Amino acid sequence: MYRSHNCGQLNASHINQEVTLAGWVQKSRNKGFMIWVDLRDRYGITQLIFDEQRTQKEVLELATTLGREFVIQVKGTVIERESKNAAMATGDIEILVSELTVLNASITPPFTIEDETDGGEDIRMKYRYLDIRRNPVKNSLLFRHKVAMEVRNYLSAQNFVEVETPVLIKSTPEGARDFVVPSRMNQGQFYALPQSPQTFKQLLMVGGMDKYFQIVKCFRDEDLRADRQPEFTQIDCEMAFVEQEDIIQTFEGLASHLLKQVKGIDTGAFPRMTYDEAMKKYGNDKPDIRFGMEFGELNAVAQHKDFAVFNNSELVVGIAVPGAASYTRKQIDELIEWVKRPQVGASGMVYAKYEADGSIKSSVDKFYDAADLQQWAQITGAQPGDLIVVLSGDAHKTRTRLSALRMELATRLGLRNPEVFAPLWVVDFPLLEWDEDSQRFHAMHHPFTSPKPEDISLLETNPGAVRANAYDLVLNGNEIGGGSIRIHDKATQALMFKYLGFTEEQAKAQFGFLMDAFQYGAPPHGGLAFGFDRLVAILGGQETIRDFIAFPKNNSGRDVMIDAPSTIDETQLTELHIKLRG
Amino acid sequence: MYRSHNCGQLNASHINQEVTLAGWVQKSRNKGFMIWVDLRDRYGITQLIFDEQRTQKEVLELATTLGREFVIQVKGTVIERESKNAAMATGDIEILVSELTVLNASITPPFTIEDETDGGEDIRMKYRYLDIRRNPVKNSLLFRHKVAMEVRNYLSAQNFVEVETPVLIKSTPEGARDFVVPSRMNQGQFYALPQSPQTFKQLLMVGGMDKYFQIVKCFRDEDLRADRQPEFTQIDCEMAFVEQEDIIQTFEGLASHLLKQVKGIDTGAFPRMTYDEAMKKYGNDKPDIRFGMEFGELNAVAQHKDFAVFNNSELVVGIAVPGAASYTRKQIDELIEWVKRPQVGASGMVYAKYEADGSIKSSVDKFYDAADLQQWAQITGAQPGDLIVVLSGDAHKTRTRLSALRMELATRLGLRNPEVFAPLWVVDFPLLEWDEDSQRFHAMHHPFTSPKPEDISLLETNPGAVRANAYDLVLNGNEIGGGSIRIHDKATQALMFKYLGFTEEQAKAQFGFLMDAFQYGAPPHGGLAFGFDRLVAILGGQETIRDFIAFPKNNSGRDVMIDAPSTIDETQLTELHIKLRG
Repeated sequence: MYRSHNCGQLNASHINQEVTLAGWVQKSRNKGFMIWVDLRDRYGITQLIFDEQRTQKEVLELATTLGREFVIQVKGTVIERESKNAAMATGDIEILVSELTVLNASITPPFTIEDETDGGEDIRMKYRYLDIRRNPVKNSLLFRHKVAMEVRNYLSAQNFVEVETPVLIKSTPEGARDFVVPSRMNQGQFYALPQSPQTFKQLLMVGGMDKYFQIVKCFRDEDLRADRQPEFTQIDCEMAFVEQEDIIQTFEGLASHLLKQVKGIDTGAFPRMTYDEAMKKYGNDKPDIRFGMEFGELNAVAQHKDFAVFNNSELVVGIAVPGAASYTRKQIDELIEWVKRPQVGASGMVYAKYEADGSIKSSVDKFYDAADLQQWAQITGAQPGDLIVVLSGDAHKTRTRLSALRMELATRLGLRNPEVFAPLWVVDFPLLEWDEDSQRFHAMHHPFTSPKPEDISLLETNPGAVRANAYDLVLNGNEIGGGSIRIHDKATQALMFKYLGFTEEQAKAQFGFLMDAFQYGAPPHGGLAFGFDRLVAILGGQETIRDFIAFPKNNSGRDVMIDAPSTIDETQLTELHIKLRG
Repeated sequence: MYRSHNCGQLNASHINQEVTLAGWVQKSRNKGFMIWVDLRDRYGITQLIFDEQRTQKEVLELATTLGREFVIQVKGTVIERESKNAAMATGDIEILVSELTVLNASITPPFTIEDETDGGEDIRMKYRYLDIRRNPVKNSLLFRHKVAMEVRNYLSAQNFVEVETPVLIKSTPEGARDFVVPSRMNQGQFYALPQSPQTFKQLLMVGGMDKYFQIVKCFRDEDLRADRQPEFTQIDCEMAFVEQEDIIQTFEGLASHLLKQVKGIDTGAFPRMTYDEAMKKYGNDKPDIRFGMEFGELNAVAQHKDFAVFNNSELVVGIAVPGAASYTRKQIDELIEWVKRPQVGASGMVYAKYEADGSIKSSVDKFYDAADLQQWAQITGAQPGDLIVVLSGDAHKTRTRLSALRMELATRLGLRNPEVFAPLWVVDFPLLEWDEDSQRFHAMHHPFTSPKPEDISLLETNPGAVRANAYDLVLNGNEIGGGSIRIHDKATQALMFKYLGFTEEQAKAQFGFLMDAFQYGAPPHGGLAFGFDRLVAILGGQETIRDFIAFPKNNSGRDVMIDAPSTIDETQLTELHIKLRG
């Protein structure tokens, strides 16, 4: 037995007990006649004391050699601490050490094992096993486990079955790029790693499994944007004999349960919004509704004056920025530069200050009088003291730009409080979206999503207007889940593949098994998948997912700790029937 | 709402209620004036009734069109059944149908959806989604989920944390063959899929995570023997600050809990046996101890007579086969043929019948008298009525052969009852085993296993005799778990790599990150992994794992349902910087 207790466990009730502890040296203070050591493990920190009076000479001498991160085992007596520390669970006691064993020494770590470390991102990733010793990372991983257990127990109690679907599957050209795995036993052929278990969960519904879930790794070989990982985890769910409303109720139940259990928050029923409404009000299909700043469309009041920029725009749209009428000229110029950045792409920004005295002064006073500007204020909901900012141009792009500006301003104004949770269902997504590159429609969710029955007739005449039985769960401006009611008959599925530009042969080669399955009594079904990494990060009050993943990869898809990927032997390549291109 | 209840839910307490059910047509009987339909879903079967008197004509007519596996929705009234079926949960009632909707038709399934189906393995795998509708497969998957939940809840309650380790890792030449994944972003480099999360779980221990587990997919690109899968699932576990005894206690606790919870069985403390003892007594490091038939070594009593075959053998060893003295000459000849099969490889078998009257008659009476044979009986523990069978030759091979014969006879005698559970720890495994092919020692478990401290001095002089801190958990003749106390200091790990034939450079390239980690205060640690597919199958009372995996692969590593692996586009190959060999 290496230890009788852990380092977070002992308190005044243990005084006079003989105990054995093991852990890491967090720090030590040596006053010559007395040495204090903070001993750390996963559970906490316990103070050890060695002193001339009460500690044997050899033990005291050995204690002087202890460096940071040494692994030690001590035996000793729990005693009352002279200067108690109420902030620590173990702050009332210390251990008077009688025996000390160094289990392993440590060289100096490349960064301090403290909540606020001196190590940068790169060095922390290279020595991730040291980074994990730090509370922020350790607690994130413990939190992730807690959330996963809550999910599993909640869904199991509702008769959901976790079924493991295969990792070695078949490559499909639709969607993102697959990672592939050359087969040694089937020469010239490849497995693919799943981007999601989509077809398998649908086949489980055909198989009568009824309520399925899985917390499962998925893979996408995409160029990595910040905070994206090539392997990521989903809570993947599917139900048979359900309509959209059943799915929404079921998973709103799950999300509410998590907010309640892990955050102690009761949000009440989640609001719902159509995709069209979200785009109009927030310029975004995953609006952050923790704060207002809703879009006000100004075409009717700002066009047909002499301001050509607005007159030539498809859309003139503004928001009221609370309390920002006091912005200086310099601050406003900086905002204008901000919206002109290539990442945002606006050509300019019009603004109007709604002063505390009720007057409004704009950057376009030449074209608009006080009455005009009052209308702007009314439409954007501006109050005295607010700043109205207005963008104009192509409708879709302008909405997207104003959404970016809205989020940026909210961040600057501190309106994106990570401890406030505002969930929202966005429903009635378009079924298809036009892709400029390939000059054809793509499935907005995936090719298995069912169109709304009342919109099916539009498929021939106006495909872009067809709405899907698709829904997203949005939390604090992040899509944390999304899903749809699926197509469950062969004819509709074949039609969908046709509209998506598959030849009959391609559809059969890629998804023949699914269309075959639909012939044998496929039930109506639908589902949803949560992005688990993101969900956990948001619940944990963080913006980035990286600390909620034990061993993340960097933006080049590399694990810098183990140095993967790496080259492999020529023998391996030969066995796999492949060779490298020069 | 597609249904108000499921098909396993309704009973006499629901009589007169209006209900809505949905499910599959299991079968229908049409007597003209009356039609009965068995409606099936995941939860059970409910009988529907349509009759001339009480059912509308259109509904009755539609009911006549229903074929097997049609998906339907019905509304109706729960009524008392005339001829009750006590064997069914819903056997007291039936549904008098008022509304019928066909949700989806079905063509004739390729095999019957019955507990005993007419479909062979191949066709069932091709239409696995239909196979899953059958109770034996469905119940196996539900059972798997139940076991997984028990494991997670048990370990979580003991402070174990489930941590997800990466799937895209680094290829290592040691162990089985890796599946690899070409990297698009890192030209000419490959990820590997993990054969186990071994190094990551050790790094989590270095990271202070203390108690880790994960139910996790692992991958081995090996030629598939029967009942092996290229992707399989482990319960992977690791603990810090532990000795072998802590690990054994902890996971005996888990295994006992599972036996109790899912089988209602209390086995008491698990027996333990050293590797040497297991090999001597059973010729096998995973002995099935549900029955006796322990080996009796006969060298002392059978050699130095005139029987050259025995005299020239390193080992003469026998077992008593209970009640088999009555075997006919033909049966015994067949046994002799059985041991001579290439898979077993014996050159012959000697036997002695211990008759009910106390006399013993052997196939080698020319060389052995009654007193000799009585000694054989004593050593093998034979009783009157038993058959003694004896093999001889090279010690190791003979033990392996006799073990195969012992298992075969036990199967024939019905001694391998799947509802009896006999767990066993096998401990003190050798650290290294000699590999004839490569003419060097290999790690018997893996290169991270620690030698027993008292045997370290033998590493130079007699490597094969060094015992490891390694242990297996055996259940009914299957290794269901195995693990070891790990090396946790850099010097010992470097030494081990040296003994295993790694150059310093190779060790650094492959496992440098682990040896680096050991410099920063690595705690003593060890762990264990359970083969989850096998564990679930054995607990489920089955010999094969296939029905406990939703979508298994065949012996060529193919998923015959989705037809994977498959060829990929030239564009994909180009992006991945690889080409096929001609």
